[in-house]
Amino acid sequence: MKAADVQAIIARSPYLSWLGLQVIELGNDEITVKATWREEWVANPTVGQTQGGILAALVDFAADFALIERMGRPVPTIDMRIDYHRLAKRGDLTAKGRVIKLGKQFSVCEAQVYDEAGALIASGRGAYLTTAPDS
Amino acid sequence: MKAADVQAIIARSPYLSWLGLQVIELGNDEITVKATWREEWVANPTVGQTQGGILAALVDFAADFALIERMGRPVPTIDMRIDYHRLAKRGDLTAKGRVIKLGKQFSVCEAQVYDEAGALIASGRGAYLTTAPDS
Amino acid sequence: MKAADVQAIIARSPYLSWLGLQVIELGNDEITVKATWREEWVANPTVGQTQGGILAALVDFAADFALIERMGRPVPTIDMRIDYHRLAKRGDLTAKGRVIKLGKQFSVCEAQVYDEAGALIASGRGAYLTTAPDS
Amino acid sequence: MKAADVQAIIARSPYLSWLGLQVIELGNDEITVKATWREEWVANPTVGQTQGGILAALVDFAADFALIERMGRPVPTIDMRIDYHRLAKRGDLTAKGRVIKLGKQFSVCEAQVYDEAGALIASGRGAYLTTAPDS
Repeated sequence: MKAADVQAIIARSPYLSWLGLQVIELGNDEITVKATWREEWVANPTVGQTQGGILAALVDFAADFALIERMGRPVPTIDMRIDYHRLAKRGDLTAKGRVIKLGKQFSVCEAQVYDEAGALIASGRGAYLTTAPDS
Repeated sequence: MKAADVQAIIARSPYLSWLGLQVIELGNDEITVKATWREEWVANPTVGQTQGGILAALVDFAADFALIERMGRPVPTIDMRIDYHRLAKRGDLTAKGRVIKLGKQFSVCEAQVYDEAGALIASGRGAYLTTAPDS
Repeated sequence: MKAADVQAIIARSPYLSWLGLQVIELGNDEITVKATWREEWVANPTVGQTQGGILAALVDFAADFALIERMGRPVPTIDMRIDYHRLAKRGDLTAKGRVIKLGKQFSVCEAQVYDEAGALIASGRGAYLTTAPDS
Repeated sequence: MKAADVQAIIARSPYLSWLGLQVIELGNDEITVKATWREEWVANPTVGQTQGGILAALVDFAADFALIERMGRPVPTIDMRIDYHRLAKRGDLTAKGRVIKLGKQFSVCEAQVYDEAGALIASGRGAYLTTAPDS
């Protein structure tokens, strides 16, 4: 699967389209995507910070899609942990995912989310079900 | 803080409003909220399942707001773990949060997300920063 | 599998024997075990607290063995989260595990660890691989 | 704090001594330690694998002590996640920890555990309480 195929999956998905995801780079069990900021992301309008659920969605997407070249499809998330490092102010976000351990039954991936200035906003890791679809 | 105060926080928040959150019950270090389904939640239109990031946002909201009577304000999430149990098909979701351990510096809370049939869709827990705001 | 069978698994295991585990109760996808304190558990002799790795081992054991009636064997841990709530002073510990969601490919369980006074010391949850052994 | 100071903390700690920890390298918010295998680590004598609680203790130690130069003391673990990648057969283990994000109130660190052949056995991350001791 290539970057254009991932972009097509995003285009078909209401939620991934709503996140405004653009694939920047894909290869070597890694992916980089940009998410386009929108006003609905804001948790508290006084602070203007992006809500943690958006960051969690980005960590999960990037971690899962780091597996997509190998798996040829998005795989189910078993579970995920996310750590919040800094407030994400209004602005686009970049998420980078990579595979930590590819396994026959489940795999572990991690991802980082950066703001426009390159500051680390959040990071995390998840376990993904990578058994063959018919098993 | 009462249910109406939490509803006012939701009304002011672009993201919480977008989730269509309604406070059902608040008290005894617990909260129950309903989230109103919207088409943009869908991950894959063929399957129709709600994206994991929405479920993560609901777990985080319910876990955090289980502390709101005590804290009088939403508190920063340190980190969160979410486990995915079943696909969430189109439809409203209910999230229930409760405090596991209230601490002076950080507190631990958990939450469950249920579909309209009452099936457990996802659950998780997080650590929340509960130091006094000026510390 | 019955409590006596679990006790036999413990007896054969060097590590579980070292933890001094005794099965108190087993049934309904739940287990309660007691761990017998030993001096080697102490992290810092001035404070006298039990090291977090011991608590993690107890959470993992109790969560995994909550599945043992159903699975008939200990199953591989995919991952685990542990939250530390209070310092565990010198003394025996009790761990209680229960199944949150039994699945065909993986299952999620949680566990709590209590001290001799019944105070909650640590708690956590993990994902366990519950596919059939030959899959 | 230098490697010799960390080795002295280990020497005073019953549990860290029991793990047979030797500091290999310390610096730049990173630490590498070796743990000396012992028979009591074995979960199941037929398989011979090291129990997950030992691996959890190593991840927690290495993640926590990646902060020790900065903090001058071991700090309380708020919570930890561990992912299990491969069975650890009989033999010494090496754990490497590094700081992901240093914060004023809490910090996030990660660690990996490798076997004697250099294979990645387990990895994880935790949140650590890094407020000043008197706050």
